[in-house]
Amino acid sequence: MLIHSSSQLLTLQGGPQRGRALGALGIIENGAVVVHDEKIIAVGKTDELKAGYPDEPTLDASGCVLMPGFVDPHTHLIWAGDRANEFEMKMSGKPYLEILAEGGGIISTVKKTRAANMETLIAQSRSRLLRMFIHGTTTAEAKTGYGLQTATELRLLKALLALDDESPLDLVVTFLGAHAIAPEYKDDPQGYTDLVSGTMLPMLKEWWGTHAPRLPLPFVDVFCETKAFDLLQSKQILTQAKELGFPLKIHADEFDNLGGAALAAELGAASADHLVVTSDVDIAALAKSETVAVSLPCTPFGLAEEHYTPAQKLIAADAYFALATDCNPGTTWNESMQFVIALACRAMKITPAQAIAAATINSAHAIQRSETIGSIEVGKQADMLILNVPDYRHLGYRYGTNLVRQVIKRGRAYSVDVGYYQTA
Amino acid sequence: MLIHSSSQLLTLQGGPQRGRALGALGIIENGAVVVHDEKIIAVGKTDELKAGYPDEPTLDASGCVLMPGFVDPHTHLIWAGDRANEFEMKMSGKPYLEILAEGGGIISTVKKTRAANMETLIAQSRSRLLRMFIHGTTTAEAKTGYGLQTATELRLLKALLALDDESPLDLVVTFLGAHAIAPEYKDDPQGYTDLVSGTMLPMLKEWWGTHAPRLPLPFVDVFCETKAFDLLQSKQILTQAKELGFPLKIHADEFDNLGGAALAAELGAASADHLVVTSDVDIAALAKSETVAVSLPCTPFGLAEEHYTPAQKLIAADAYFALATDCNPGTTWNESMQFVIALACRAMKITPAQAIAAATINSAHAIQRSETIGSIEVGKQADMLILNVPDYRHLGYRYGTNLVRQVIKRGRAYSVDVGYYQTA
Repeated sequence: MLIHSSSQLLTLQGGPQRGRALGALGIIENGAVVVHDEKIIAVGKTDELKAGYPDEPTLDASGCVLMPGFVDPHTHLIWAGDRANEFEMKMSGKPYLEILAEGGGIISTVKKTRAANMETLIAQSRSRLLRMFIHGTTTAEAKTGYGLQTATELRLLKALLALDDESPLDLVVTFLGAHAIAPEYKDDPQGYTDLVSGTMLPMLKEWWGTHAPRLPLPFVDVFCETKAFDLLQSKQILTQAKELGFPLKIHADEFDNLGGAALAAELGAASADHLVVTSDVDIAALAKSETVAVSLPCTPFGLAEEHYTPAQKLIAADAYFALATDCNPGTTWNESMQFVIALACRAMKITPAQAIAAATINSAHAIQRSETIGSIEVGKQADMLILNVPDYRHLGYRYGTNLVRQVIKRGRAYSVDVGYYQTA
Repeated sequence: MLIHSSSQLLTLQGGPQRGRALGALGIIENGAVVVHDEKIIAVGKTDELKAGYPDEPTLDASGCVLMPGFVDPHTHLIWAGDRANEFEMKMSGKPYLEILAEGGGIISTVKKTRAANMETLIAQSRSRLLRMFIHGTTTAEAKTGYGLQTATELRLLKALLALDDESPLDLVVTFLGAHAIAPEYKDDPQGYTDLVSGTMLPMLKEWWGTHAPRLPLPFVDVFCETKAFDLLQSKQILTQAKELGFPLKIHADEFDNLGGAALAAELGAASADHLVVTSDVDIAALAKSETVAVSLPCTPFGLAEEHYTPAQKLIAADAYFALATDCNPGTTWNESMQFVIALACRAMKITPAQAIAAATINSAHAIQRSETIGSIEVGKQADMLILNVPDYRHLGYRYGTNLVRQVIKRGRAYSVDVGYYQTA
């Protein structure tokens, strides 16, 4: 199949973009892509490719932007229920401690998730996965973490693998048994830390070898934060995970600066995520490492808070900067990377071009997949978007609606053009 | 047709909600609505209505919220082109005066709009109208204002009437010849003011009588702002419009407090819109009047500015408070009232219930249509939404995607369920 656009083809070629290099879109005007068997086999000017592949069936994307699919490197895709009532309480000015006292907070989602059967978990998460896909996400990271007990955490893994199998969207799985201190251990956080590192991680390794032997090992992630896991406990879990061969991630500096970002850099984690109150020392540590700084602007937006990731500092320091939704039931229920881009531009004063690179090639790097996805280059997986806009800058400029016309996933085209039809 | 929901039916009954009364949703659990010939003929418990109308064909909205369609009382629907490049410049830190010097700002849209033929204008605006409709807007106000010369302004009116005819969404038209000082009069704002009040308005009255004799007269609106129309010029135009029988609207206090809100109250305008830097004196004037305070939170969001309408003050003072998109190419290109609700909750700390009332019955009042639309009550037009959520608080809580499953417009059901299908 030959896909051609009369306007912009954004290739994002050349690998992950560090520091001030962020925002190189590699634009080809009147560009085209040839796809065979899930892969990209040629990229260039439409005229030349049409001459070189005269018998190839064509997909006309004239007037549209053609670009890599979004890679969302941080989602809590799988949970049961919702916390819409908490949102209303928050907007009414009720203090967070009172919301907790009324049974709110993460533990309420843990209770519902533990109680949900596999069918419910998959059905509720499937609708989120559908929304991600129609908004242009072709690969998403997805974390466990609303189980906080071995059996449920493994059930969530199983559900994620099933969702990956059934959906055109690819999932990259992360084990987040250390999302919060389990309610059974609320007075013994060290006890829960020991359970995660000493019992869950070795069991995970064995389970993965049995259930997903052909897939690379999942990421292991920790919520390094006051009232969750402190720096030493985070280090204990991540060090054990590293020894077992798992690639690493960390939630750091969402509310308090505990040093989690520097820890991520020290251990060679793929990414450090949130990074709102990150210190200059931690920024310098990230900048010297291969660890990607993943900003989650929807989280402060969702919580109606004022502070965002210091993107300018991270970029100026030469760190890798990426964007993700953080889609979750407590702080931000939004599946659209398009909205993340629009918000990131405004809240962190980055350009549409920078946000697009942060949502494709750099976010692919944050899940260690930048060699296969995140750009339009020969040999890469054919994951692309056709946007109903003539210029890439409509991403960012416009928001609140869906600009995707078609998603190309592993070389197959899916139409997501929205419209309406009379039914009664 | 009998439409029934096993969860919440939001009636919004009882008319526009003034001040602290805002947010009364009139919820019926397990509620149903019976529709005949475009109108609502019964509202009540599903059991009772099913018994009372046993032969009525039913539309099952089980598990969904059933509510009035959104009324968007402030849009600049009709223009040609875009200003995506300006957004990029703004995010790069370029000062507004430099953007103007490079040909940006409202006049660039005026140039493109004047140059566009009727077909282009209608085609470009149609796609926006489609996005409004699938996101749940069943009635939208739509302003002229990118012509700034008599012939083009009338052409925009004609295009809006054509769009109203072809679309299931109802448009309520506003004449905004006084959107900005026309470029030909840049050194003579009073001259342009005289042209609008002395020539355009009488011509509009005649034109309307010929082209749309069966429709109520359009609103007349003025942009009362530094570098647009000052208070006296605004008063001149609105007073003349009132004498000719037009209902009134005003853009006031977006950047500078010139007294436009109090002027609106004094002249009995239907609404005063923007209201970011509104003084306590102006708030008091609005609160004593029937003029609706229309907040446009997407405008500061779109511009990445910090200040929003003082919603709490307006509500506490006993004003009517409503919400709108302000969809336009310069400051905010978003068609979705769902996003307006989500943003309004966070930026102005109002609850989902308050935002919903502000986006239905109160926004209907802002365009003087609250007797026919904006709520689910016997005798009203059957304009309703079926949302894919079990609780109204998902509006606000969730954002960035579309929660509408079906739109009922004048009793006809349109499915807008989004999905994807493989095409190649």
